[in-house]
Amino acid sequence: SAPVKPARLGLCAACHGETGMAQIPAAPHLAGQKADYLLEAMKQYRDGRRNVPLMRAAVGPMSDADLAELARWYSAQSPQQGRP
Amino acid sequence: SAPVKPARLGLCAACHGETGMAQIPAAPHLAGQKADYLLEAMKQYRDGRRNVPLMRAAVGPMSDADLAELARWYSAQSPQQGRP
Repeated sequence: SAPVKPARLGLCAACHGETGMAQIPAAPHLAGQKADYLLEAMKQYRDGRRNVPLMRAAVGPMSDADLAELARWYSAQSPQQGRP
Repeated sequence: SAPVKPARLGLCAACHGETGMAQIPAAPHLAGQKADYLLEAMKQYRDGRRNVPLMRAAVGPMSDADLAELARWYSAQSPQQGRP
């Protein structure tokens, strides 16, 4: 079943898009990426193992449940061929 | 034009696949990801800003030119719908 739209999606979508096709040059596409990988990456940004201040600020306040919801959402999206 | 197959591709392909569709659970898909993002991520693994020992060992010996070649290669691949 399709995942519920995450409550925290708006902040992420500003750069990564609602469907995981990035809106800005520095942001990666997330559509169809593995959920486990996305969750682990967000945890690494949150705790500083990935030392990227913008991402740490974005996910710092989020709970494990928030991150899991976002990982499921973006993983369930389909990569678009006409990528930006 | 299609990029030349990178000399260093074999090591990466063991986990990420030759076409960027990951072969193992912990590895992300790379097919169609932005080249700039892939290059920056590899540099972060190489210098430790992304603190992942396996990736640091893998890209540590690589030159900027090696990394750029790999980024171009994986970015030029198409994500597959039937993802592993």
